[in-house]
Amino acid sequence: MPIVDIHTHVYPPSFMELLRSRTTVPYVRTFPDAPDSSRLIILPGEDNPSTPSTSRGRPIGPEYYDIEKKIAFMDLHNISTSVISLANPWLDFLPAEEAADAARRINDEVNSICSQYPGRLYAFGTLPLSGPVDTVVSEIERLNGLKYMRGVIMGTSGLGSGLDDPRLDPIYAALQKHEQIIFLHPHYGLPSEVYGPRANEYGHVLPLALGFPMETTVAVTRMLLSGVWDRFQGLSVLIAHSGGTLPFLAGRIESCIQHDGHLKSAGKIEGRRSVWDVLKKNIYLDAVVYSEVGLKAAIDASGADRLLFGTDHPFFPPLEEDAKEWHSVTTNYAAISKAFEGAIQGSAEDVLGNNAVRILRLHD
Amino acid sequence: MPIVDIHTHVYPPSFMELLRSRTTVPYVRTFPDAPDSSRLIILPGEDNPSTPSTSRGRPIGPEYYDIEKKIAFMDLHNISTSVISLANPWLDFLPAEEAADAARRINDEVNSICSQYPGRLYAFGTLPLSGPVDTVVSEIERLNGLKYMRGVIMGTSGLGSGLDDPRLDPIYAALQKHEQIIFLHPHYGLPSEVYGPRANEYGHVLPLALGFPMETTVAVTRMLLSGVWDRFQGLSVLIAHSGGTLPFLAGRIESCIQHDGHLKSAGKIEGRRSVWDVLKKNIYLDAVVYSEVGLKAAIDASGADRLLFGTDHPFFPPLEEDAKEWHSVTTNYAAISKAFEGAIQGSAEDVLGNNAVRILRLHD
Repeated sequence: MPIVDIHTHVYPPSFMELLRSRTTVPYVRTFPDAPDSSRLIILPGEDNPSTPSTSRGRPIGPEYYDIEKKIAFMDLHNISTSVISLANPWLDFLPAEEAADAARRINDEVNSICSQYPGRLYAFGTLPLSGPVDTVVSEIERLNGLKYMRGVIMGTSGLGSGLDDPRLDPIYAALQKHEQIIFLHPHYGLPSEVYGPRANEYGHVLPLALGFPMETTVAVTRMLLSGVWDRFQGLSVLIAHSGGTLPFLAGRIESCIQHDGHLKSAGKIEGRRSVWDVLKKNIYLDAVVYSEVGLKAAIDASGADRLLFGTDHPFFPPLEEDAKEWHSVTTNYAAISKAFEGAIQGSAEDVLGNNAVRILRLHD
Repeated sequence: MPIVDIHTHVYPPSFMELLRSRTTVPYVRTFPDAPDSSRLIILPGEDNPSTPSTSRGRPIGPEYYDIEKKIAFMDLHNISTSVISLANPWLDFLPAEEAADAARRINDEVNSICSQYPGRLYAFGTLPLSGPVDTVVSEIERLNGLKYMRGVIMGTSGLGSGLDDPRLDPIYAALQKHEQIIFLHPHYGLPSEVYGPRANEYGHVLPLALGFPMETTVAVTRMLLSGVWDRFQGLSVLIAHSGGTLPFLAGRIESCIQHDGHLKSAGKIEGRRSVWDVLKKNIYLDAVVYSEVGLKAAIDASGADRLLFGTDHPFFPPLEEDAKEWHSVTTNYAAISKAFEGAIQGSAEDVLGNNAVRILRLHD
């Protein structure tokens, strides 16, 4: 039985080089007071000079850039195949004139890494979204020729103003045409004021546990409201963290649309596709939700044939030094197993691997 | 079989008078270009001078302040009993020196309204949270003597800096002591920048469908992280909109806590109560989630004996002029009915009324 991890990140060597060359977020630095360890600082809120350098961001080690560590992690957790993707913030921060070259270099590098472990590694490509739209479309077309690429990872920023930006239409059109799925992943979170004046007492919990899924849900809902899936009825999106909170809020979203006087006056309620229709036909969800409750809601919303196992490796390592298996992985394994106990439709095996093999055309 | 609506709002006459006397949010105004209708403007984003006055905020009619309209709505939807509460933004905006008097006046007025329909109306009281803490505690004690009061409604602002503010401890202590439940309700949403540059094309959907439940979830998670339920293990909170997104995100919240290096170094992981424990012992959820998917997740997270039917009346009226029953109500009725089809534990009857009668001691 194949177990496929579709939510697993890498910073390939050339991207590490880029991060090490920078002094503003995102960057990787070895601070003078701790010369034996490096820190990865990717979120604006993590670059706080009042935070000691040894607890700024997160430690970064070879599990982020050495593919052998990924393979060892896969072996430890019985994962047969991983679909790797560049970790956030991707190339969003690059000057426009550097983006296209960087995307080509990184996509070629990642494709080459996959070729070293045939059948065990596939990848989502990276797009030069800070550059001109035509260079993005060109890179989508070029990805078609890279053997191990199975879609693209994308943040919520789009070309800088969100995924409901009509300037993205040529990009959506190209992705739809070439049957490349978008792996939609958060990075920017919510404005820090949301977390209140005591947020620094809670570590990274609020931005990671809440900011990420909320950012994701807002982005997807904006896509829906702007009619992306009315215009591109074949556009597929795999949403990180089981859709953020979309399965739970879909009913409220649909109800608020149906009760909105402004939308009604503008003639925007009739004829549009509902969130439920999009959830069943265009959206796929990963199974990275850390509970049976969340997983069942994701299954109910989108279908057991549309959920795909993931780990979020190398993020959320165990804090215990002597831990072997990662709790963040075993929690999701357990949730998948429990969610299908006595189930009439679907199976844990589908979520663990069969769905990914079918949807992403692995082993083609 | 009793049907009890625990999420249903009023602006009693003295509060309407207050709203009509104001010119900044929140306010009620009849604009010169539409002398036959009044508008209710309660959210900062709604007070946009570029929005025509006739579509600013929402229309407000007697269903907001005339209790006979509430009773007619209840009769139409077979609701036997309503636990009414002041609608947002409550008294959060009042100058400190006016708050205590206003709370007393409004609580007495609401209690008196309930007394006109014995057995059909109960209420959650309103607290003078912009005033000194001791006046808030006094009002909690005074509410104990008002026959129809069954707890208090509260926003997420607390004393101005959130519900994780340690200055709230005397208030939590008084509520726990007097077994008054907090009905926790959103109002402030998320900063508007989250919705992007095209938000005005989407009516009220983003702030209502997403902002409200996300605000709620952040507020509850901050309470959890600050140890409110470790210090007040008997404090009960009924969370609006089925917990915002808490049932879906609980697993991620717990996982992020367990993997947080900062919390571990601070010794804050061991010994704390988990979100699951609090969901099963301190938290109650309303059943205002507009889908079977969401409702099942709420049941899975908190228990079928902890969910309580609600309508959110008078918000979300049908847009069709000739509609009789409200879609916003029938959608939730249908979700409750479907969620318990073939269920082994719990029943639709419990969620519709029995739970509220037991938990809020109605008909005492």
